[in-house]
Amino acid sequence: MTRLPPTPDFDTYAVPADIRSVTTEKDGRVLRLAWSDGRSSRFHAIWLRDNSCDPGNLNLETRETTVNVTALPTDPRVVEAHIDAAGALAVRWSPGASLHRFHPGWLYAHDYSNGAQPHDPGVVPVAWDATLAEPPTFDGADILTDDTALEAWLKAFATYGIARLTGVGVEPGTVARVAARLGPMRVTNFGRIFEVRVQAGPGSNAYTALALPPHTDLSTRKYQPGLQFLHCLVNDSAGGEAIMVDGLALARFVAARDPEAYALLTTVRWQSSNRALDTDYRWDHPVIRLDDAGEVVELRVVPFLRAPLATDFDQVERAYASLRVAYEAAANPALQMRFSYRPGDLVAIDNRRVLHGREAHDPDSGERWLQGCYSEREELLSRLRILARQRRGTERAGR
Amino acid sequence: MTRLPPTPDFDTYAVPADIRSVTTEKDGRVLRLAWSDGRSSRFHAIWLRDNSCDPGNLNLETRETTVNVTALPTDPRVVEAHIDAAGALAVRWSPGASLHRFHPGWLYAHDYSNGAQPHDPGVVPVAWDATLAEPPTFDGADILTDDTALEAWLKAFATYGIARLTGVGVEPGTVARVAARLGPMRVTNFGRIFEVRVQAGPGSNAYTALALPPHTDLSTRKYQPGLQFLHCLVNDSAGGEAIMVDGLALARFVAARDPEAYALLTTVRWQSSNRALDTDYRWDHPVIRLDDAGEVVELRVVPFLRAPLATDFDQVERAYASLRVAYEAAANPALQMRFSYRPGDLVAIDNRRVLHGREAHDPDSGERWLQGCYSEREELLSRLRILARQRRGTERAGR
Repeated sequence: MTRLPPTPDFDTYAVPADIRSVTTEKDGRVLRLAWSDGRSSRFHAIWLRDNSCDPGNLNLETRETTVNVTALPTDPRVVEAHIDAAGALAVRWSPGASLHRFHPGWLYAHDYSNGAQPHDPGVVPVAWDATLAEPPTFDGADILTDDTALEAWLKAFATYGIARLTGVGVEPGTVARVAARLGPMRVTNFGRIFEVRVQAGPGSNAYTALALPPHTDLSTRKYQPGLQFLHCLVNDSAGGEAIMVDGLALARFVAARDPEAYALLTTVRWQSSNRALDTDYRWDHPVIRLDDAGEVVELRVVPFLRAPLATDFDQVERAYASLRVAYEAAANPALQMRFSYRPGDLVAIDNRRVLHGREAHDPDSGERWLQGCYSEREELLSRLRILARQRRGTERAGR
Repeated sequence: MTRLPPTPDFDTYAVPADIRSVTTEKDGRVLRLAWSDGRSSRFHAIWLRDNSCDPGNLNLETRETTVNVTALPTDPRVVEAHIDAAGALAVRWSPGASLHRFHPGWLYAHDYSNGAQPHDPGVVPVAWDATLAEPPTFDGADILTDDTALEAWLKAFATYGIARLTGVGVEPGTVARVAARLGPMRVTNFGRIFEVRVQAGPGSNAYTALALPPHTDLSTRKYQPGLQFLHCLVNDSAGGEAIMVDGLALARFVAARDPEAYALLTTVRWQSSNRALDTDYRWDHPVIRLDDAGEVVELRVVPFLRAPLATDFDQVERAYASLRVAYEAAANPALQMRFSYRPGDLVAIDNRRVLHGREAHDPDSGERWLQGCYSEREELLSRLRILARQRRGTERAGR
């Protein structure tokens, strides 16, 4: 009983303050803790009972809950609570006489009565326009092994929706090995890795030398891929400059200048459909999707996969006018970042936030070859949490 | 000019009626068609201009749009329209003198002025309870090659959220070959194929002999997998009966009996988090997610990956009470379908609609081995559209 108890996850928790006192309220339905730094926290008995690490509650090997909520007492009460010799909270219940212990650092981190968000990666998106001249850029030479470099790159990626590595070499397949540093890739009908170069019998305008206006990929899916990685292997061709537009900035730009167009862009459902011989993906969606609070959730900008609009007849002309406003904003140099790919560059793009495009290139002047693949935002966030967790573990071990 | 023009996709369109007359309205901004079956359709000039298959508009090789909406005239007018010798609509524009032709069957199918939904798979979900004694079941012996069998199985799957194949054999890897009939699989941190059997050092309660209450998989992700496939290779073990609950029926059951609990289940955001050494996925979500019209979009029922609730302090006890209502409904025999897996059975489950679980089994009595994998609803819908398209093509060729 002199060691702190386990926590219901595999993370490590510092103890930023000690529990000074514990009292119960509402007939033991609520427990109040006073901390040495002055914080006062409240926890419900049912919440504590549910999150207990007692062997009857939790499989410590998997850290998964083993007690079903239907098997919990409907109205558990705390009948006794104290701070034990290790500094843990110890609670005895009614019904059930057993003593459950709670790690003070875990309680502090999960203090919902004070709105705690335990170990959130805490990445705050920063909108950008043409004044950001280049993607945030990091040395990628050791990206496959160096976790510090990985975390710096991924944090910038999560913040700006775009970030670049240089010097990753020009070996084919590198893009997948880098993406696998986050987690599983998203495989689509274009394959695990897709080849962005001039192809015979192209399955997409992307596989031609044509210019591509700024767009998001695969909006024909209910859930368009969250992340895209593009790795440059060869770029001897004239033209083909990359064009990037931050959808957050685009949304703000349109909302400020043309509120009526913005209202239509966030409500009228356009349909995206792929045109292929063996697949027929379709999805209908606004151009800019907002959450209930009016914040931008995602953009879907699809110049070449726009299916026939099917909406209220009287809204069609205004809907087209609003689409023109959005596409003109995407073509506005004040919102565009432009750069050229160099062999060994690898660019990460948030496909639900940042529009990507390119100028036409001249295939007679030389070769241009990018390899690409998709992943998801949840892999990015999971990796950032694990990298932070590993740092916490390392820091603690080093004390 | 005696053949019908191409369409902006790779589909084939019957001509269910002929165009009898064409007139323009609103100074050429709207075009009206009268059909031989009595239908009257209206199309906007901007819509027709955008969906034209003219070579300046569309890459016929990829069937992708090549004209950006910003390059279209802002206010195109139809200055001349007639029905040509092939029965196609022919339109001349201002500005721009060129003549664009439209396929009459394609126009009929995309007649948004009459709310047409071209080639929608038209699957209507049917809710079920314990009176559906078994999953809809199909002979799977030829499923890898027989498109008719595939379509019958997939239609039932889309309708009921569950459907079974029998007789697919017991070769490991079969589950992935069957899933690939729809399209790319969804790979997760549990691998491309996951092995549901008792494992040493299990990464999940699923890989033990424990009972699993009805649940949905991977609700720790923003987008939990849409489809799951489970293939039985061996089942010599006592117990392990499958338990399935239709989430649509569960939602209706709770809404009818306990509106207050239903309101909380559709609004309070619970957090799911995995507990692993190398991944840290988290997502917060209501148990039952509704769309703006109040229809059920998805369920997330996560008995063993429930992370500490972080919501308004005063709502915690009522939230737990509502969760108990949902889990008790999932445990209600009146809502449960139960069956035992036989070697060679392969069950498809809509993971965002149908909860799956199992009784405990006795690993000392024999082996139980299922292989599973994930895919997405969009692959199912794309495959259903393509199978229907192939049938249309075949029917037409056979005339």
